[in-house]
Amino acid sequence: MRKIEIVQGILDANDATAEGNRAAFDAHGCLAVNIMASPGAGKTSFILRTIEGLKQDLRIGVIEGDMVSTVDAEKVQGIADAVVQINTRGMPESCALVADMIQVALERIDMDSLDVVLIENVGNLLCPAEFRLGEHLRVVVSSTPEGDDKPLKYPLIFADADAIIINKTDLLPYVDFDIERFTRSIRNLNAAVPFFPLSCKTGEGVAEWVSWLRSRRPTK
Amino acid sequence: MRKIEIVQGILDANDATAEGNRAAFDAHGCLAVNIMASPGAGKTSFILRTIEGLKQDLRIGVIEGDMVSTVDAEKVQGIADAVVQINTRGMPESCALVADMIQVALERIDMDSLDVVLIENVGNLLCPAEFRLGEHLRVVVSSTPEGDDKPLKYPLIFADADAIIINKTDLLPYVDFDIERFTRSIRNLNAAVPFFPLSCKTGEGVAEWVSWLRSRRPTK
Repeated sequence: MRKIEIVQGILDANDATAEGNRAAFDAHGCLAVNIMASPGAGKTSFILRTIEGLKQDLRIGVIEGDMVSTVDAEKVQGIADAVVQINTRGMPESCALVADMIQVALERIDMDSLDVVLIENVGNLLCPAEFRLGEHLRVVVSSTPEGDDKPLKYPLIFADADAIIINKTDLLPYVDFDIERFTRSIRNLNAAVPFFPLSCKTGEGVAEWVSWLRSRRPTK
Repeated sequence: MRKIEIVQGILDANDATAEGNRAAFDAHGCLAVNIMASPGAGKTSFILRTIEGLKQDLRIGVIEGDMVSTVDAEKVQGIADAVVQINTRGMPESCALVADMIQVALERIDMDSLDVVLIENVGNLLCPAEFRLGEHLRVVVSSTPEGDDKPLKYPLIFADADAIIINKTDLLPYVDFDIERFTRSIRNLNAAVPFFPLSCKTGEGVAEWVSWLRSRRPTK
């Protein structure tokens, strides 16, 4: 029982910090997006495509979460207006970003000079579902080679998403992925969530996602 | 500090239980294999192919770990000699199998009637690296669409593996995956680990893996 109480305590404390983060984003008119996915689903390529679609008139910050390494931060460095790397190794919750880590990252970003903050969570479909960061939007990137049964096996993260990306549509001819079955499973968990099938490799479908994301910006 | 001490206490207790599981496997001459991967890397297809390669003369048990659902257990039901499903949802460690769960599963299996126990861990490259189950072999299944940079980002699980499977080689013409770069990154972490590139879809390369696995069985 003791262990479970402590876990609940951690989650409650996290929610309180997340509320503070959210207030900070709101005060600066910054749209915050938490991007969650399995390892290798294409989160970083997705972030690069998203920045490409927004950067003409918006300024974008990226917070990169990884257990170790700065591989992803290096990829976005040249194109984002601000990048902060968070390495979770050795922290009590090393399998997800938590609100405390975002709070620290926000101290290193000048939010007044940003319109959108994209947060790349640790590659994991389980732990990130449990921790709010103070984000406005929770986006799950699923990719076609992972198979269409992921919503059945990792329901929490899909149930709670504000948008679902179906990445790597260019691989559809070569993998067993039934988009109908996938979307139907998610509809059972999350009736109104929008889907964006796209390919970060070819760019197909990215414009629809970017245009939806723009529509979610706060009116300043 | 308190939180970290408790986490260490959980890991120590887990190791003790894992030793007991290992002794039980040994007493019955059962080879235990812990199979770890990202969601969608193909763990279940890999288990099905492995059983196919062993079942002519060996009896196989499967322990299926999933946060929720029995999707995978249903797939192996017809072909394995014994199947136990473990659902981790609601448990303090829901993002990985832990030794306690295996201990309970072993009470429901007649190990005298089995030669090999395949344990399908929860789809996750982070948490399962931390928890020993009492297994003889730790196997990581990586798949080509995930990209060749996974060892840089999830080093713990690769550093500690006894075999690395490179699944979905049939997709190599369509994805950016450099086998040389992948194996070189792993060699830096784990100098002697054997690699098995294969396709569970076509069956190519499965025989080499099965023959290696057979060579690791205890001499009764």
